[in-house]
Amino acid sequence: MSTAVSPLAPKTYPDMPLLEGVRFATAEAGIKYKGRTDVLLMLLDAGTQVAGVFTRSRCPSAPVDWCRANLPGGAARALLVNSGNANAFTGKKGRAAVELSAEIVGKAVGCAPEEIYLASTGVIGEPLAAEKFAGVIDGLTGRAAAGSWLDAARAIMTTDTFPKVSTRTVDLGGVPVTINGIAKGAGMIAPDMATMLSFLFTDAPLSAAVLQDVLSASVGGSFNAITVDSDTSTSDTALLFATGAAVKRGAPAISDPADARLAAFRTAFFEVMLDLAQQIVRDGEGARKFVEVAVEGAQSDASAKRIALSIANSPLVKTAIAGEDANWGRVVMAVGKAGEPADRDRLAIWFGDVRVAVDGERDPGYSETAASAVMREEHIVIRVELGLGAGTATVWTCDLTKEYVAINGDYRS
Amino acid sequence: MSTAVSPLAPKTYPDMPLLEGVRFATAEAGIKYKGRTDVLLMLLDAGTQVAGVFTRSRCPSAPVDWCRANLPGGAARALLVNSGNANAFTGKKGRAAVELSAEIVGKAVGCAPEEIYLASTGVIGEPLAAEKFAGVIDGLTGRAAAGSWLDAARAIMTTDTFPKVSTRTVDLGGVPVTINGIAKGAGMIAPDMATMLSFLFTDAPLSAAVLQDVLSASVGGSFNAITVDSDTSTSDTALLFATGAAVKRGAPAISDPADARLAAFRTAFFEVMLDLAQQIVRDGEGARKFVEVAVEGAQSDASAKRIALSIANSPLVKTAIAGEDANWGRVVMAVGKAGEPADRDRLAIWFGDVRVAVDGERDPGYSETAASAVMREEHIVIRVELGLGAGTATVWTCDLTKEYVAINGDYRS
Repeated sequence: MSTAVSPLAPKTYPDMPLLEGVRFATAEAGIKYKGRTDVLLMLLDAGTQVAGVFTRSRCPSAPVDWCRANLPGGAARALLVNSGNANAFTGKKGRAAVELSAEIVGKAVGCAPEEIYLASTGVIGEPLAAEKFAGVIDGLTGRAAAGSWLDAARAIMTTDTFPKVSTRTVDLGGVPVTINGIAKGAGMIAPDMATMLSFLFTDAPLSAAVLQDVLSASVGGSFNAITVDSDTSTSDTALLFATGAAVKRGAPAISDPADARLAAFRTAFFEVMLDLAQQIVRDGEGARKFVEVAVEGAQSDASAKRIALSIANSPLVKTAIAGEDANWGRVVMAVGKAGEPADRDRLAIWFGDVRVAVDGERDPGYSETAASAVMREEHIVIRVELGLGAGTATVWTCDLTKEYVAINGDYRS
Repeated sequence: MSTAVSPLAPKTYPDMPLLEGVRFATAEAGIKYKGRTDVLLMLLDAGTQVAGVFTRSRCPSAPVDWCRANLPGGAARALLVNSGNANAFTGKKGRAAVELSAEIVGKAVGCAPEEIYLASTGVIGEPLAAEKFAGVIDGLTGRAAAGSWLDAARAIMTTDTFPKVSTRTVDLGGVPVTINGIAKGAGMIAPDMATMLSFLFTDAPLSAAVLQDVLSASVGGSFNAITVDSDTSTSDTALLFATGAAVKRGAPAISDPADARLAAFRTAFFEVMLDLAQQIVRDGEGARKFVEVAVEGAQSDASAKRIALSIANSPLVKTAIAGEDANWGRVVMAVGKAGEPADRDRLAIWFGDVRVAVDGERDPGYSETAASAVMREEHIVIRVELGLGAGTATVWTCDLTKEYVAINGDYRS
């Protein structure tokens, strides 16, 4: 397995501002990996509110079950994340492991186990040795501080080649509030309700109901609009925590999702979500190309999205991109197989700015040279105009390379 | 691109019996390939009846449109197939090309263009130079004979590494009748109504209505139960022709699909379809493993099939198989993402005879050695028991290797 950083990685990381009410630390618990951090503990001040979205898999992991069950409480005091083992399809042992984990952390933090949020990522089906957390919890709580968000993001990586962070500071009722987010994911990426793992934090004084509304409204165009390999994880989790610390600086406490003062916050939050989602695509296993698929003129936005995902998930489209081959016929194929309304003879397709097909056939002015030049770029935009209605959607994916096969042919060992 | 024959190819080919009423020849028209046959003409005696099933793609090829339009006539006098160019997404030029092709062949054969069936396979989006058929048609009709079915199958190959033929002889009303079939396909294989290309012939005196019923009933468990890469072709076509020549030997002419004398014919026909479908999987691009996915205990057969295809189409399941990794956690993932009723905690999974998971967790007697031994086999059976109902389905696929990526990264050039 290659350990080189993805060529699509961001060239710089943002300075992540301090986020009042959040302290954290990482540790090496030896869950699976050796010589690297694999546990992240985030401590949240009393009063922190929480919202979440999760995988739609019928076989969700034990931590997903745990978070879902506790979310109605709306209160959170800590988040414990481990990499190396997903605690998925682990049956009664899995349930016991999350209960033990929450108990260990709850005791160290001094709160109810139900206020502890848990996430695990890694191999499916191996029992998780939660007792290993006991050995590192005192060190974690002792060290927890307003530390390096990059280190936090690094501790939750599996096949990721770079840590994923994003931040925005935005006005809320005349007071600047901050949103910091981290994420992990590189393979088994076709989120249906959330993504692999993403944790978002704000000091804005927002109620759990507001957080849930903001989070649910953002996920469709961000984490649910990316795919690496069409495979949906058992562990997809996105959690949004609000410490409310900004209330001390005069930020208004908001508990009504319809409050107009949320507008800027919603926009900034979506930007953080989209940034993190695109970073996951940029770290897609074996990826060498970042691909945007935009579908326009569909009968509805939902129809446009299904067609866009059909293109973005097609192995033949993705291998052609890997080979820098302007094989737009495969885009036609992927539109055709989507099962959505489409009229072959109205279809037009662009690679970048080059229109390659129009009115159901190759563009009369088609230039292989121009199309091939687009394919050599690192960032490729495929645009499809259906000519049927006003439905649009944009999704992001990467190419399918031999490296993807190599990485996934021997992941467990 | 590798030209080696797939290691999964059949070790022997059947002796294909003469099929009265069918004569054929192949030629090199230079459509795309050099130094190999790329055109097949099959001549059918007067009175031949025909049935067909086609891709459900919303962007079907021009030959698919042509065959669909003529099928209600029920009569066929010739089949012209070319490889190298799919005549798909070719607009008005594509329609003109099929009309010209049918006219050239109809004139040579002495029948109406509507009795000429056409199929094309190869690159999508390139105009097809149908005038090239004019240069070879006299030679084809002159040479047409009860020749080598392997040669016929070879002329329609694209990325296939071996020709695909199958045959059965079966009793119809006390008289033996023959079914001969050929097929091509190796990539862009996830048939939704038919397969890439398959042509089946019988001397049984069956009406077009009977043929359509027999063909439609067989396709679900054969061509529609295989996948190489989840990508559905614009050109999928299966045509069944009956010359009726066996009537001279006393076979009964049957025009009612409910006729009980069809039972043995139906069974044999399905066997031919399944044999050809499995050969396509055995020639899956880059394939090194032949994989059977059997799902049992689903709420319905349709639900079982969707779950089986979710497993068979998963890049992570297929790369694990390529890597001989007994990663049954990915099977759990694929069950979970299928969107069908499934209860994680009732799930059991077998690799070959080795039960690897039961009751929602790893089998208590799990042996990595035993599971790994199964993965080293060439033919791997993955069985999933859902424990919900009586629904079952079996589908076939292959592994996903680096070779698949190599083959498809530079297909057009």
